[in-house]
Amino acid sequence: MSAALAARARPHVVIIGGGFGGLYAARALRNAPVTVTVLDRTNHHLFQPLLYQVATATLAPSDVAQPIRFLLRKQRNTSVLLAEVERVDVTGRAVHLTGGGAVPYDYLIVATGARHSYFDRPEWERDAPGLKTLDDALELRRRFLMAFENAEQSGDPDERQAWLTFVIVGAGPTGVELAGILPDIAKQGMRDDFRNADPSALRVILLEGGPRVLPAYSEASSARAQADLEALGVDVRVRTLVTGVEPEGVRVGEEFIPARTVFWSAGNVASPLARSLGVELDRVGRVPVNEDLTVPGHPEVFVIGDLAAVRRKDGAMVPGVAPAAMQEGAWAAKNVVRALRGDAMRPFRYRNKGELATIGRERAVAEFGRLRFGGRVAWLLWLFVHIMYLAGFRNRISVLVEWAYAYFTYRRGARLITSREAGHLPEPSVRVRALPPWGDRGRG
Amino acid sequence: MSAALAARARPHVVIIGGGFGGLYAARALRNAPVTVTVLDRTNHHLFQPLLYQVATATLAPSDVAQPIRFLLRKQRNTSVLLAEVERVDVTGRAVHLTGGGAVPYDYLIVATGARHSYFDRPEWERDAPGLKTLDDALELRRRFLMAFENAEQSGDPDERQAWLTFVIVGAGPTGVELAGILPDIAKQGMRDDFRNADPSALRVILLEGGPRVLPAYSEASSARAQADLEALGVDVRVRTLVTGVEPEGVRVGEEFIPARTVFWSAGNVASPLARSLGVELDRVGRVPVNEDLTVPGHPEVFVIGDLAAVRRKDGAMVPGVAPAAMQEGAWAAKNVVRALRGDAMRPFRYRNKGELATIGRERAVAEFGRLRFGGRVAWLLWLFVHIMYLAGFRNRISVLVEWAYAYFTYRRGARLITSREAGHLPEPSVRVRALPPWGDRGRG
Repeated sequence: MSAALAARARPHVVIIGGGFGGLYAARALRNAPVTVTVLDRTNHHLFQPLLYQVATATLAPSDVAQPIRFLLRKQRNTSVLLAEVERVDVTGRAVHLTGGGAVPYDYLIVATGARHSYFDRPEWERDAPGLKTLDDALELRRRFLMAFENAEQSGDPDERQAWLTFVIVGAGPTGVELAGILPDIAKQGMRDDFRNADPSALRVILLEGGPRVLPAYSEASSARAQADLEALGVDVRVRTLVTGVEPEGVRVGEEFIPARTVFWSAGNVASPLARSLGVELDRVGRVPVNEDLTVPGHPEVFVIGDLAAVRRKDGAMVPGVAPAAMQEGAWAAKNVVRALRGDAMRPFRYRNKGELATIGRERAVAEFGRLRFGGRVAWLLWLFVHIMYLAGFRNRISVLVEWAYAYFTYRRGARLITSREAGHLPEPSVRVRALPPWGDRGRG
Repeated sequence: MSAALAARARPHVVIIGGGFGGLYAARALRNAPVTVTVLDRTNHHLFQPLLYQVATATLAPSDVAQPIRFLLRKQRNTSVLLAEVERVDVTGRAVHLTGGGAVPYDYLIVATGARHSYFDRPEWERDAPGLKTLDDALELRRRFLMAFENAEQSGDPDERQAWLTFVIVGAGPTGVELAGILPDIAKQGMRDDFRNADPSALRVILLEGGPRVLPAYSEASSARAQADLEALGVDVRVRTLVTGVEPEGVRVGEEFIPARTVFWSAGNVASPLARSLGVELDRVGRVPVNEDLTVPGHPEVFVIGDLAAVRRKDGAMVPGVAPAAMQEGAWAAKNVVRALRGDAMRPFRYRNKGELATIGRERAVAEFGRLRFGGRVAWLLWLFVHIMYLAGFRNRISVLVEWAYAYFTYRRGARLITSREAGHLPEPSVRVRALPPWGDRGRG
């Protein structure tokens, strides 16, 4: 117990959230003279950049997620606790958990990320879900697969086409990657599977409120991405604001687009936990942090990743991307160590590692400073970077196998609808009043 | 349309259920002059013999399941319809769907299988779920993983041990295979992952009401399997009847076993659809069929697989195993074709292909007629047979990769708790009143 008592004197660093920010903060504290506790309400770290491939049945959930405690198992100064945080008490220096209990801290790193923003229209979420968590991906996968099942069961051609029309709202990287992957999956991968529905009749419509797709990229890359999407048959509409989302379709100004499947990838709002930190938040709920990533007035509380509004020296904001969260996580950890040594904390410096987005098979756009390119070279680079960054050796092999299978056969390996994912037993949402002409579907 | 009208004259064979029985019936009708419709309430065929590996986080759901319509895509006379059947109208020759609609048939093959039987104690299901569907497997996986999370959060040693005690009720193949796989996963695969809970403290108790494990095997194989299980540390108790299942444990006569995780693999009851066939059912709800697998009085209705009570010439029942369902499916299809040609239907003959059950890593028991063996040779045979029978090329490679990973690292790749699987956001079911001594867990 004397060793334990000595250990108890170590400062306790609590990290909320096991995403890129939280995980890299924990890893950077590996050899620090502190005790680390990572809190997350799921048991897994998620490789979010590949989540759209779970939503489209290409990868299995376990290909893009690993238990957080497994990833940190070798770090003997670190515990992982599956728990939901209700609020932070910055005065009492404790994190309060849903269902009772509190975890005291000496240093706190908050990395709970963001959810989708529906711009004051939360009722749209029901018919246009977004893609941030594994649960979101399973719900999108269910809707994606059920759309074809429903089209197969529909006797009405207009209704069938509405089931085969997918609208994606928001043309950031997630929206563009989703739009680019759908046509091949349907037209090639499902070609022989249906008797009544025709997967090649799939329509994908990508709506963007701003003037171009991939707004964070250069104009040249945006134009290239849009041309690539259009070559795949995607109907790309920029400067188009959604004015209504209904179960049977999307309203765009005067036009009504009949579409039974709508995915939302427009706008973020920071995690509501930020409100308990006692500082004024920005327009989208983020915490405006000091240069050293601490919360104003609380040098022992850091906010990183999508929850933080981090301003660069030149006045621009650090973008809400995975590499920024990783860098901020490691930086916050280093500032904790500096403070413990009695050194001054140092202002965060963001290194832009470049941008990469893939469009369907064999195409991508890449930007590294002034270097911009696209096509197959960018696509191969995208493959390489994503495989390299995938956390955990096992997933890499598994993902390579799935990708090779999908590439050579056009087919997707994880086309499962399970009722737990559905929340209820699947049943035809089209009532089979008049059955489709099953008798017509023989070989004759 | 003339071709369509000609096609409509073809007899319509409806198959309810896309398990082994239904799938093999559909495949055997591939070149028959009929139109086939397969109805299932899920979109996937499930390779049930490997389901326990999903429940224990070794395989991903997509490794053991494939869309039924994908498996039958090349069969142009066959449609697949995702729908739940409410009842069969044997007089009107139509299958009525939940939510409305009816599918008329000329021949019907019913293959809806069985669920667990709780012997008139349905309230036990909540605390002791069984393993038949992909949803069941995801629920078991959630409980399996949450047990360790809860043990990690418990400050009370007795409660912690109750979370680390797993009771499996029923020592048929599923119970034995579950019991055999758990010790290695916990003791080797999770060794470094926890700070407060000790996975090597895992207790697995296998309860069997009858006199020996694997009752369908020879006494020699039963003895060998029991010895193998005991060598793995499993507490095997035969002639032991469960008298109560409660949230905190299992009652066995006078004894109360504190165990927060209980899996049920004892007893089957046939799918309730059988009641609408208008014939008297046997004790466990199965349909006693004629020798040719038809329902008495209805030569156009076949019942196969776990839903059928098929008596062999020597009076013994055909066992409820996958090979029997496959053989019955193909046989029923051939009898349909014989009837269409005006030939007499032929009585079903079951070919026992042998029995195989695996016990942990590197051990198994095998029986082929009088040939009985165990150990590593049986285990390699088990591997080979299961890989060969796995439906679909992709799954084979993926399963091989997962198995190789699990074999060499002892780790499991699919350790995910998702809230959709949980039905609610995971939260500590042990209230964190007094936190475990996080401060004690440093390297000191």
